[in-house]
Amino acid sequence: MANILVTYDVNTETKEGRRRLRKVATTCKDYGQRVQLSVFECNVNEAQYEALRAKLYNIIDPDLDSIRIYKLPAPRELSVECYGIDKYIDFNDPLII
Amino acid sequence: MANILVTYDVNTETKEGRRRLRKVATTCKDYGQRVQLSVFECNVNEAQYEALRAKLYNIIDPDLDSIRIYKLPAPRELSVECYGIDKYIDFNDPLII
Repeated sequence: MANILVTYDVNTETKEGRRRLRKVATTCKDYGQRVQLSVFECNVNEAQYEALRAKLYNIIDPDLDSIRIYKLPAPRELSVECYGIDKYIDFNDPLII
Repeated sequence: MANILVTYDVNTETKEGRRRLRKVATTCKDYGQRVQLSVFECNVNEAQYEALRAKLYNIIDPDLDSIRIYKLPAPRELSVECYGIDKYIDFNDPLII
């Protein structure tokens, strides 16, 4: 499994752009967690990585939008520092009911 | 030197928030390149990393804003894939006049 970061800028000046933005976000949600408005952290295997990449590529308008996919070093905790609001939920943490 | 990624969400509902957003962006510009609206790639040494982190921490309102700093594995080219608009300029590339 690989930790990846997906960041995107989608041009929302048109109705079509706003549709693309929603589709990019809903697609990323299938593969990971939204940690900021246009930033998702995903933990994916090779097949999921390929599928996510292909879906995002087919959604955006390459002349207007930007998608960046970063491979993060493991373990995740050593590669990210957060200041302020942190929306990340570690599903490996014990669930306290 | 380390490759880091700075991503941020700043609450801009108030004038003060819009001021914080501008300050976060101008601070990041001192250390790297804006590759998306709220995403900067920086190549920094340890001292610059500490300075950038402290400045950003002092700018934001931790209850309203979010800063994430990711350490990227080297070399940079192997850790990032871009689709659509790519604003990154590789200053190590030969300058063709």
